[in-house]
Amino acid sequence: MSNSKVSLPVIRRLPRYFRYITELKASGKTRVSSSQLAIFMGSTPSQVRQDFNCFGGFGQQGIGYSVDLLYDEIEHLLFPNNHIDAVLIGAGSLGATIANFVLTETEGVNLKAIFDNNPNIIGKNMSNIKIFDVNTLVNYCKENKPDLIIICIPKSGAEELAPIIVETGVKGLWNFSHYDFSVYDKSLIVENVHLRDSLMALSYRINHVEEE
Amino acid sequence: MSNSKVSLPVIRRLPRYFRYITELKASGKTRVSSSQLAIFMGSTPSQVRQDFNCFGGFGQQGIGYSVDLLYDEIEHLLFPNNHIDAVLIGAGSLGATIANFVLTETEGVNLKAIFDNNPNIIGKNMSNIKIFDVNTLVNYCKENKPDLIIICIPKSGAEELAPIIVETGVKGLWNFSHYDFSVYDKSLIVENVHLRDSLMALSYRINHVEEE
Repeated sequence: MSNSKVSLPVIRRLPRYFRYITELKASGKTRVSSSQLAIFMGSTPSQVRQDFNCFGGFGQQGIGYSVDLLYDEIEHLLFPNNHIDAVLIGAGSLGATIANFVLTETEGVNLKAIFDNNPNIIGKNMSNIKIFDVNTLVNYCKENKPDLIIICIPKSGAEELAPIIVETGVKGLWNFSHYDFSVYDKSLIVENVHLRDSLMALSYRINHVEEE
Repeated sequence: MSNSKVSLPVIRRLPRYFRYITELKASGKTRVSSSQLAIFMGSTPSQVRQDFNCFGGFGQQGIGYSVDLLYDEIEHLLFPNNHIDAVLIGAGSLGATIANFVLTETEGVNLKAIFDNNPNIIGKNMSNIKIFDVNTLVNYCKENKPDLIIICIPKSGAEELAPIIVETGVKGLWNFSHYDFSVYDKSLIVENVHLRDSLMALSYRINHVEEE
């Protein structure tokens, strides 16, 4: 069922489908049509069917999709091993913010270790997770094989760290820095989150409201 | 110079331009070509010129753009009043996470007040910002006219709150809930941030790496 050639926009829509289907399941609905899904997604029934066809179609269209089947299939696509292990680099304020988010707001993601280069905090805890010396990152990853690394350091530090990240063998990066890791190594799988950019775009839009 | 009909994708690229130009300025560069900007943006020189033409062009192309002029113009587009005032709704763990982010990682955004409906925390502080009763939100906003509201409550609460949000008269929402406010009122200016979706998309990609 897993198709490695699914396009990024389709992959990025999967969590939104999953959210909606989770709600439908919780409300006791058993079937949902591509039209209903399209309204939620702000797309078209044909787009929904095209998206689902990337993953084998998820069952018959004529009578609507089974909510339980959709839930199970998409959950399995998103978390095939039930959970993923993560480590975080950068125990500063952004790192604390994101560690807190992962620990309190995500299921299926286990934050196992935090790394930093500041000798004053190495060995201490942040959100009850131990802070290790970033020099031990490669060994840690080779031994514990986390699924992803969360990057919470400034751009310059991220750029310096890129060869070390590659050496860890970890393929997935949740990147809050402004360094573009794919420039360094195209085989890295990177999701960039630029919270500040989102806030700046909002500021622009607030300040340039179209007069109606 | 402000053009109210600039498309959302162009607006969303502005902060990235601004980041790069900030770096160029810090490194002492005085001119930059559309080709250099295109490399950073992963686009084309023609796309860069098209984007800039939405805002009046930012000066001559033949000899490159002036870094100082680009910086000033784009900063003024993003923050025409130098700063924006924000309030946050939801003093739970996500709210604490985002309040911490705004206080430590953003410039130009002042977090002025936090609102919640939990009587046990109303009147207390979070990150040194006072927590008010959400029932006082409308009055607070009419009096203090914040530029944006940061939504850090679950979807059901956000849906319930939508009429109150509209009543505040605040147009800009930085929305971390999964409720789609534009369904309630199309005139609201909403930037949605779905951190969990980003993490799920990454989980999918890690687990379905294309074999090369």
